[in-house]
Amino acid sequence: MTLKTAVLGASGFAGGELIRILDDHDGFDLVHLGAHSHEGGTLADVHPQLRNGTRPLGAISAEVGPLDIAFLALPHGASAALGRELREQGVKVVDLGSDYRFDPQWRYGLPELFDVKDGSAVASPGCYPTAILLAIGPLVQAGVVSATGIVADCMSGVTGAGRSLKDELLFGEVAEGVRAYGIANHRHRAEIEMGLELLGATEAIVTFTPHLVPMQRGLLATVTTQLLTDDNPSEVLAAAYTEAPFVEVIDRPPQTRWTVGSNRALVAAFVDERQGVVIAQCAIDNLGKGAAGQAVQAANLMVGYDETEGLTTSGWMP
Amino acid sequence: MTLKTAVLGASGFAGGELIRILDDHDGFDLVHLGAHSHEGGTLADVHPQLRNGTRPLGAISAEVGPLDIAFLALPHGASAALGRELREQGVKVVDLGSDYRFDPQWRYGLPELFDVKDGSAVASPGCYPTAILLAIGPLVQAGVVSATGIVADCMSGVTGAGRSLKDELLFGEVAEGVRAYGIANHRHRAEIEMGLELLGATEAIVTFTPHLVPMQRGLLATVTTQLLTDDNPSEVLAAAYTEAPFVEVIDRPPQTRWTVGSNRALVAAFVDERQGVVIAQCAIDNLGKGAAGQAVQAANLMVGYDETEGLTTSGWMP
Amino acid sequence: MTLKTAVLGASGFAGGELIRILDDHDGFDLVHLGAHSHEGGTLADVHPQLRNGTRPLGAISAEVGPLDIAFLALPHGASAALGRELREQGVKVVDLGSDYRFDPQWRYGLPELFDVKDGSAVASPGCYPTAILLAIGPLVQAGVVSATGIVADCMSGVTGAGRSLKDELLFGEVAEGVRAYGIANHRHRAEIEMGLELLGATEAIVTFTPHLVPMQRGLLATVTTQLLTDDNPSEVLAAAYTEAPFVEVIDRPPQTRWTVGSNRALVAAFVDERQGVVIAQCAIDNLGKGAAGQAVQAANLMVGYDETEGLTTSGWMP
Amino acid sequence: MTLKTAVLGASGFAGGELIRILDDHDGFDLVHLGAHSHEGGTLADVHPQLRNGTRPLGAISAEVGPLDIAFLALPHGASAALGRELREQGVKVVDLGSDYRFDPQWRYGLPELFDVKDGSAVASPGCYPTAILLAIGPLVQAGVVSATGIVADCMSGVTGAGRSLKDELLFGEVAEGVRAYGIANHRHRAEIEMGLELLGATEAIVTFTPHLVPMQRGLLATVTTQLLTDDNPSEVLAAAYTEAPFVEVIDRPPQTRWTVGSNRALVAAFVDERQGVVIAQCAIDNLGKGAAGQAVQAANLMVGYDETEGLTTSGWMP
Repeated sequence: MTLKTAVLGASGFAGGELIRILDDHDGFDLVHLGAHSHEGGTLADVHPQLRNGTRPLGAISAEVGPLDIAFLALPHGASAALGRELREQGVKVVDLGSDYRFDPQWRYGLPELFDVKDGSAVASPGCYPTAILLAIGPLVQAGVVSATGIVADCMSGVTGAGRSLKDELLFGEVAEGVRAYGIANHRHRAEIEMGLELLGATEAIVTFTPHLVPMQRGLLATVTTQLLTDDNPSEVLAAAYTEAPFVEVIDRPPQTRWTVGSNRALVAAFVDERQGVVIAQCAIDNLGKGAAGQAVQAANLMVGYDETEGLTTSGWMP
Repeated sequence: MTLKTAVLGASGFAGGELIRILDDHDGFDLVHLGAHSHEGGTLADVHPQLRNGTRPLGAISAEVGPLDIAFLALPHGASAALGRELREQGVKVVDLGSDYRFDPQWRYGLPELFDVKDGSAVASPGCYPTAILLAIGPLVQAGVVSATGIVADCMSGVTGAGRSLKDELLFGEVAEGVRAYGIANHRHRAEIEMGLELLGATEAIVTFTPHLVPMQRGLLATVTTQLLTDDNPSEVLAAAYTEAPFVEVIDRPPQTRWTVGSNRALVAAFVDERQGVVIAQCAIDNLGKGAAGQAVQAANLMVGYDETEGLTTSGWMP
Repeated sequence: MTLKTAVLGASGFAGGELIRILDDHDGFDLVHLGAHSHEGGTLADVHPQLRNGTRPLGAISAEVGPLDIAFLALPHGASAALGRELREQGVKVVDLGSDYRFDPQWRYGLPELFDVKDGSAVASPGCYPTAILLAIGPLVQAGVVSATGIVADCMSGVTGAGRSLKDELLFGEVAEGVRAYGIANHRHRAEIEMGLELLGATEAIVTFTPHLVPMQRGLLATVTTQLLTDDNPSEVLAAAYTEAPFVEVIDRPPQTRWTVGSNRALVAAFVDERQGVVIAQCAIDNLGKGAAGQAVQAANLMVGYDETEGLTTSGWMP
Repeated sequence: MTLKTAVLGASGFAGGELIRILDDHDGFDLVHLGAHSHEGGTLADVHPQLRNGTRPLGAISAEVGPLDIAFLALPHGASAALGRELREQGVKVVDLGSDYRFDPQWRYGLPELFDVKDGSAVASPGCYPTAILLAIGPLVQAGVVSATGIVADCMSGVTGAGRSLKDELLFGEVAEGVRAYGIANHRHRAEIEMGLELLGATEAIVTFTPHLVPMQRGLLATVTTQLLTDDNPSEVLAAAYTEAPFVEVIDRPPQTRWTVGSNRALVAAFVDERQGVVIAQCAIDNLGKGAAGQAVQAANLMVGYDETEGLTTSGWMP
């Protein structure tokens, strides 16, 4: 079986990674690549690293011919109408944007913690919520740690900020520096707290501080919160992820390099006895498990393929 | 007046930066450069970027001819005997290592928070304690924030790890990645807590997680702790640093790039109302205000020069 | 069919990339990973980015059980005896080192320019010779350009220098700098000239200057030489590579980023009319087409698989 | 004496570096900073790394109050009218752009090779011509090498491309890659050839290929050309630069890192005996000796200050 598939939003970083993964996936047949400002051009204009660069870039629209499934990799706010129209036509949708992450009619596509199977529409999580929920979700769920008073300091590579042309993303502004942004009001915060509440927390409060680091890919979440029981957090996490093919619980600090290019998530938890807190970490590739890889994982589950089809747990570095 | 000056530990990163600063400082005359494994070689062997590379590298010893002042930039644990011997000879000492940071006979050389003037020996603080104490020291001192339950997530460039030949410091292991290290047991933790207690905290407990970032210089501390009063933390910090020529309190997230190459510290504080916490940040150059720059600042005060002599607050980037 | 396969020299960068590629290749079954200094450890000790990290690291030896084929990724000079012993046992060998590149009993494994099919032993070319020969080999062969007076200035990422623990490869010595090395006497020079003479040049003389660039992977060759005919060099190259699945002739300067992670080579040629010279360029991934990818390509041909099996032409960046 | 000084074009990278240098120079008093799109803002808007960030940004115009000297750091083509108007008012001018580099009424500001003293207007050379002319100018002048058939492959950091907002300068397009640009038609080519002819070459022909490298600052020129005599090129260069305070002839390949942040140029020459060619190299900081540093050096000479005033030969790295 092969499904007629569109990537709408092909020109961005997540779009490119989706195409790279789907090109090697036997179950999805890429029949349409949609790109706003590059409509009428070819794939090589926006992703010269990808093969078959002569493929045309078409419209971003629900009227692009018969489709079985569409991946939307659009700027936040741009998926709403399109997602609705596609669903009305019976097209399955995986939306990598934020428009439907709080909508009960869409599955929240973090398969290790939420049920994604057999849905018809998936709202794929943000990269930061993915890493933070993988790091502490099972601990919150098991009542091992507090869901309030959480401090989540995260570090992301530059592709996490998207491919827009902004001064602050120039090489000459990013290299050799690190900085926080969106302190105390990043839009991912509410998504993280929603995720924790869906996992059973009565109330979740997270102080979330993202940082931009001079690298292309990779995201590390360092999450500190009160330990409430005598359980060994590392064992709780290991038990929770026994059946998860993409999550590995390790006993040393995870490096983002060990995940780049894959759909792998590396999780570790350490206890600071004096303070009575857990420091839980999760390293992912922001474009892999944090975006395109996870979207394909959810699509696999949604259409009945093996969860791991077309995805790898071997990273690229160096 | 010019003082006969030695740098003992000339071959490391902090040693090189000390030489660069002192070469342009009228009050210190570099009469001896000591380097262990490169003894007998020349400065260009270890610091080809510095001028007058034909200067000889001599011994690391207290017997290197008449000195007024010595800067020790040695691996941790290597300064103890040497520092004592130099003091016995009446030589003023600034030790950049950790051996004397808990010793009451040495001044703790963070001039913005502790008295350094007129001492004869200074233990220069570690780079992480410098940034963390500058970020929250005045807030703890004023009782505005809690000194327990502090979460300090910090990010440092690679030169902060020293110039040793370790696999984990190879370009092929560092570039395009971020990772934590020393979780829950880094040796700087006790120094940070000591600093807070010297500033008046009854008890200080800090969960300190340092991270290595793919850049050469720069250190960012992101410190989260409970807000205890209605004070505006940013105003408290600004008031505390009114007379501090190297500390600037700003109202946006500080970037390490804005400090690299200087002795500048950029401090900012943000309140997360829902959680009732302060997120205080400090950006410094780990080799500047975090090492060589701060050591020269303390030396200036110790010998009676103007505090800013030979130091700059203009960074290099790009 | 699946062949019992060993990687001898598993701990280096090329070894790791070989394992990554072969893990996804249906025709080779990795039954032995040999590593000198890490013998007795596991794959995760040396390549934490790769999956199934619990695989054991064994000896580097010809006595490692029955094998059909072995890939040798050893330091230059270390393959000689081992290569001979393996061949005596009837094991096919692909040697990524330089020991057999001048030996007529070994095929020189650059399949676009030399016959590799049906051999029993392949000496895989160096990364620089690969890029330079792909850039100008067909032009020399067709008599379009001069094989003497060639200037080949090349730029390589750091993994090209191997994974050894050297001061000059530390992040703090590589980042934010570029430098030449091995000027006028790099060992690849003779290999480049041999390649050109095998392609028909009466005499080949190349001034070869390699440079180290602050990136992990990627190699760009910029080759300048006299144009001898009225032919359009770009068309000559395009005609030569019509059947080559991994070489693409393009009309803009190739970027190494467009090849990283793949077995792709991007070639372009420009004419400087005033000087009467061609500037031919080739971009590859030094660990892909410059090492592990090309070795697998040659192995495919040697054992009768499709040349492209297990290899990709889609790069990773970003 | 202190001169009323303007920097017109304060917002770019060269403008920022000019301000940084002039702030520490006793002979120039910065009375006006002009910036097009940021007029009305403050220095901290464009150069948050520099001290006294509250300084206002004003117009780019010849009518900015009484001036003794103006530095123009404008996009190529933007200096022509302004330069003329300033000179008519008796203001000395150093133009870092290309508008006047071929104009005999302006001195070509490469003081090591051309007379700059006592002029009233200096056209400061481009970064690539500076490095190439320093590498081979004295060799051409002495008739030791050929001025035709020159191959100049150069590598520059990203700030050399200016601070404009272009896709190709985003971190996500530059990091981990190297590429050539402007092959066979870069506008610096004619400037290089003019320089060589001013030094006595009957005819100069240069094949010039610039490359962009993932670093912020630094420029390396690798220049290959026929050796015509038995002279030792390294000795010829050393003799030529005996009195040049900023040029150092060394006997190993120069690294750009050793010059970054300074006005230093490191030069080396190697002979490839088989080919009969010289490989001459020059490493500079493209913003130092390649732009702002050199402009201040020329200004020093023009107004009668010591050539080295306010400039350093100690680099910053790491």
